[in-house]
Amino acid sequence: MAGETLQVYFLGTAGALPTTNKNPACYMIRRGSDTLLFDCGEGAQQQMMRARTGFTVDAVFISHWHADHYLGVCGLVQTMSFNGRENPLTVYGPSWIYEFIDYVEKISKTRLNFRIIPSELRHGSVVPFDGYTVRAYSSDHGMPGLGYILEEDMRPGKFDREKAIELGVRPGPLFGRLQRGEDVEAELPDGEVRVVRPEDVMGPARSGRKVVYSGDTRPQLDGEWITWARDADLLIHDATYDDSERKRAAEVFHSTAGEAAEVATAISARMLALIHISSRYTKTTTHIQDAEKYYGGTIISPDDLDMTELPFR
Amino acid sequence: MAGETLQVYFLGTAGALPTTNKNPACYMIRRGSDTLLFDCGEGAQQQMMRARTGFTVDAVFISHWHADHYLGVCGLVQTMSFNGRENPLTVYGPSWIYEFIDYVEKISKTRLNFRIIPSELRHGSVVPFDGYTVRAYSSDHGMPGLGYILEEDMRPGKFDREKAIELGVRPGPLFGRLQRGEDVEAELPDGEVRVVRPEDVMGPARSGRKVVYSGDTRPQLDGEWITWARDADLLIHDATYDDSERKRAAEVFHSTAGEAAEVATAISARMLALIHISSRYTKTTTHIQDAEKYYGGTIISPDDLDMTELPFR
Repeated sequence: MAGETLQVYFLGTAGALPTTNKNPACYMIRRGSDTLLFDCGEGAQQQMMRARTGFTVDAVFISHWHADHYLGVCGLVQTMSFNGRENPLTVYGPSWIYEFIDYVEKISKTRLNFRIIPSELRHGSVVPFDGYTVRAYSSDHGMPGLGYILEEDMRPGKFDREKAIELGVRPGPLFGRLQRGEDVEAELPDGEVRVVRPEDVMGPARSGRKVVYSGDTRPQLDGEWITWARDADLLIHDATYDDSERKRAAEVFHSTAGEAAEVATAISARMLALIHISSRYTKTTTHIQDAEKYYGGTIISPDDLDMTELPFR
Repeated sequence: MAGETLQVYFLGTAGALPTTNKNPACYMIRRGSDTLLFDCGEGAQQQMMRARTGFTVDAVFISHWHADHYLGVCGLVQTMSFNGRENPLTVYGPSWIYEFIDYVEKISKTRLNFRIIPSELRHGSVVPFDGYTVRAYSSDHGMPGLGYILEEDMRPGKFDREKAIELGVRPGPLFGRLQRGEDVEAELPDGEVRVVRPEDVMGPARSGRKVVYSGDTRPQLDGEWITWARDADLLIHDATYDDSERKRAAEVFHSTAGEAAEVATAISARMLALIHISSRYTKTTTHIQDAEKYYGGTIISPDDLDMTELPFR
């Protein structure tokens, strides 16, 4: 469990309009053998082919109801069905998710081989997975919308092998039981038997890794979501405009690169990915420079199909 | 009018499943300044960007209700609306077209800036345009489906300039009037005035160009559609399988390359484009060879974004 890989695939990083080399919004997070999609813009299935990720998606999370964030669900479920998928697929999103899935099924016309289960999330909703959770928080995009925080469970502290031996625990299966949180019996040289407890030999529990996806939003520099998002290993944040367009960004409920950076600083993120950059920009140099003014961590402006692997801290 | 270009863009040539370099079905025909789409699979708008065609689509024709032939309408109309389109867009197709457009609008959620007008076509329906028509004919795909024939109006015959002068018509505006089908008065050297009629100086009217798109279908070697399609400059035909899979093709209501070639021969087409080739094939060598056994004209298996310009005969 503690050794699971955590990878983020930037499958679609375009703004509202796709370009010849940027697809509408789609971010895949793979943790171990689990695969989650965050937004699923048109053409997501082809991006998955290009990134060679396969189609074994465990759940889809939609941020809000602008079409560049969800139309790809229609084609993806077709291909999943064509490929023989039978497992139900849960699609999470803010209110309207039930209507959305109803229209996905109606516009499919042909009956799918598996069920799509719509599930509405609200600010603070937590979806549990094996070893991690996804928590929703309200975005600020002039309409009901959600950002998402994927957070791993606490990891057990470091196992102190020397101390365990000193306490009389024989190296072998007992070590594993202690690391899984079980008490064990140790036999001392004088024959005395005593109970060794995990806390005797394990260091303090360590935080898991955390990825935050903002969806489309104004920068949110306060609110309880800051607590939830704090110390994220990666913040993927709307950076539609560069800082010369702060006024425009406010009008259309998006963020500038500098504003995204302010959020990264507010939550003490380790890395910031600037995404949803408007197709009016052909380079991201200014975006990066604007972000550097407000944030001292690592800043990237990923291309479609880029992948970032997040190591343990 | 007679000098209009006629271009076919192969925007999406994939079979039921797209691949990393083939999009779902979409064929654009541009005649002069008119732009028509035949089918509009997922990602059509991005293919139009890649082919630099712009988005000024005058009408869309859907062949049948398998999702790889129509899902791209949802994203295309979003981008058209974003770009400020106000002109209504007519989308033609077989029955279910009204439900389809209803779902396109519902799944858009955000209201579009222009109207989409659904229009149901049946076998034999003819849609008139300026200088050409599009005629629908029934396909054979195990469900209601249509193929389409774009046919230019008859072109006037050749103007015999020498004969006109001999008949006393003075070179100048009168020549144009004769070519437009009007009678003119000519004055002979002896002062006699006589009427010269277009048929005195024009050769027989000549056929316009013709393009046939089969949609997904079994080969249809008889029926009145053969008369309509005869002498096509280009037949774009389903060739999902090579000829080793004739049985399979019949089971799933598709065609093999050899069967597509038989159709090309039946309608005396000048060129055959093999499309909708299944993603199981990585090369089209066998398809071409199979087709050559049944058809002596030009055979192509276009890649996505290829364009063919059809000259006057």
